[in-house]
Amino acid sequence: MRKLAVFNHVSLDGYFVDMNGDMSWAKADHSDAEWNTFVSENASGEGALVFGRITYEMMASFWPTPFAIETMPAVAAGMNSMEKVVFSRTLKQALWNNTKLVKGDPATEMRKLKKEPGKDMVILGSGNIVAQLAQESLIDEYQIVVNPIVLGKGRTMFDSLKKKLTLKLTRSRTFGNGNVFLCYAPR
Amino acid sequence: MRKLAVFNHVSLDGYFVDMNGDMSWAKADHSDAEWNTFVSENASGEGALVFGRITYEMMASFWPTPFAIETMPAVAAGMNSMEKVVFSRTLKQALWNNTKLVKGDPATEMRKLKKEPGKDMVILGSGNIVAQLAQESLIDEYQIVVNPIVLGKGRTMFDSLKKKLTLKLTRSRTFGNGNVFLCYAPR
Repeated sequence: MRKLAVFNHVSLDGYFVDMNGDMSWAKADHSDAEWNTFVSENASGEGALVFGRITYEMMASFWPTPFAIETMPAVAAGMNSMEKVVFSRTLKQALWNNTKLVKGDPATEMRKLKKEPGKDMVILGSGNIVAQLAQESLIDEYQIVVNPIVLGKGRTMFDSLKKKLTLKLTRSRTFGNGNVFLCYAPR
Repeated sequence: MRKLAVFNHVSLDGYFVDMNGDMSWAKADHSDAEWNTFVSENASGEGALVFGRITYEMMASFWPTPFAIETMPAVAAGMNSMEKVVFSRTLKQALWNNTKLVKGDPATEMRKLKKEPGKDMVILGSGNIVAQLAQESLIDEYQIVVNPIVLGKGRTMFDSLKKKLTLKLTRSRTFGNGNVFLCYAPR
């Protein structure tokens, strides 16, 4: 069975986007070489990426641009070539390279996807999708980068979750730029 | 000048209390001896404790009880004997041992307190006080324990903060029970 992980940056107050949907606060300090290696390795993985519509449209409008390709070549190459799934009832088409548009209920469709042969999957951003799939116990790993910043207001990726989720810390790593990578499995 | 820290548990989604003001989810796993030592050492410190009214009343109704003293003797002894400050406009009196009731504006009063001779101070709980004093750059250290749980809904200790707060990670420590202690200073 294919595994499903989520990888997201959060602020110390738990938000993956600020009140305007912005996540650029999470990229502030790239002067840490160890951190940059970690980011590049993550993006060059073999997995498939999973998105909700909002994050998909944001990333689809950024990663194929010359700016992205020139400033972050390794990450951009990975993001543009990897297999992608986007859940949306409203999108008519999904034009970013190698994307499958899925219109059905995310939990139902993810149950099917996990049983199909294929690569392991990672959700990026996509708070609504994370909450829905976490609720249905479909997420096998939570990869969270706690950033050294407090936003004051924003959205968590677990908003609307109807039950508490108890987790098991499986690994952690601290970076010189103040980011802390925490990895959890469901209990 | 006296230093002011905050020490709080948060869920992975950033909340220090759930929607009912409950923080008992943060005490679930005490089977980790290293963690228990860490908690006891924290509570037996030389510092003074700082509270808003809500957390003060909750703690004042718990720590002096025989139940608290019998089940957590080291922590209870520390909590009951340490100097305490409670900020409240509405409290008439503060009867928990060794408490000073302060009725003025928390930021103004904290500026005065920090200049007086005395022990370093630690805020526990007290989200409204944390947000007000963080806003005014009066907090010197943020000591946060990230618990391996997602609450879905709750209150952060930074709600109503009007500006982003950029921090510097100064230390971190991972415990076998899945708690991660993160310590930050303002930038």
